[in-house]
Amino acid sequence: MPVRMQLNRVITSDLNDQRAIYLKEVEGSRRFAILIGEFEASIINRRLLEESPYRPLTHDLLKNTIDILGGTPVEVVITEMSDNTYYAILKVSRDDAIIEIDCRPSDAVALSIHYDPPLPIYVAEDVLEQVC
Amino acid sequence: MPVRMQLNRVITSDLNDQRAIYLKEVEGSRRFAILIGEFEASIINRRLLEESPYRPLTHDLLKNTIDILGGTPVEVVITEMSDNTYYAILKVSRDDAIIEIDCRPSDAVALSIHYDPPLPIYVAEDVLEQVC
Repeated sequence: MPVRMQLNRVITSDLNDQRAIYLKEVEGSRRFAILIGEFEASIINRRLLEESPYRPLTHDLLKNTIDILGGTPVEVVITEMSDNTYYAILKVSRDDAIIEIDCRPSDAVALSIHYDPPLPIYVAEDVLEQVC
Repeated sequence: MPVRMQLNRVITSDLNDQRAIYLKEVEGSRRFAILIGEFEASIINRRLLEESPYRPLTHDLLKNTIDILGGTPVEVVITEMSDNTYYAILKVSRDDAIIEIDCRPSDAVALSIHYDPPLPIYVAEDVLEQVC
């Protein structure tokens, strides 16, 4: 069973290029970090600070594209961790079907916080057992 | 009438944060530059060098999402330049209709080169008259 998590912190450092998001269990205390790219970190930070961009940035475009093509995002799930790489899916409903789209956790979390309320974030129990 | 253009060069500088794409008329000699973000420049550069990412980057995710939701991208058009900001649309066909999605030229061009052949890039004649 996937476990409901929430975005807890975004860590950026001026000393190196490393950026990370911390996900924390909603009904528990487990938490872990995922290293992400500088761009994705800045997109997530910007959204958390509720700065609305003047023009659609790439994740706004993704959100608008899903909407305009008749999709409704349901949730994002981090499904696997293998060779230090996390794998995620974005679940979108359309015409009563659930479509799963392969993505990186950073895009999944960035997209999730473009919605109000944010799209639910889940992490597979297997992944939590591996990393917590 | 929009004019068919092609991506001519991507300029990056180590001296400052400025990045630009140059678009050149396909059947003519007009060309102009659009300043873009560092991330978009690196995405475009990476694609031009034909480095295929190990995991889907954000524009791969956008491409896959359009595809999986039944859309077929047709072309991108830079429609307007106002207050030093360029405006673009991504045209997607679905169910015999053409849908226009508002976007920045950098996302439009980045997405265009994720297709083989690249999605056609057009620029409104008005814009060319303003900037060339």
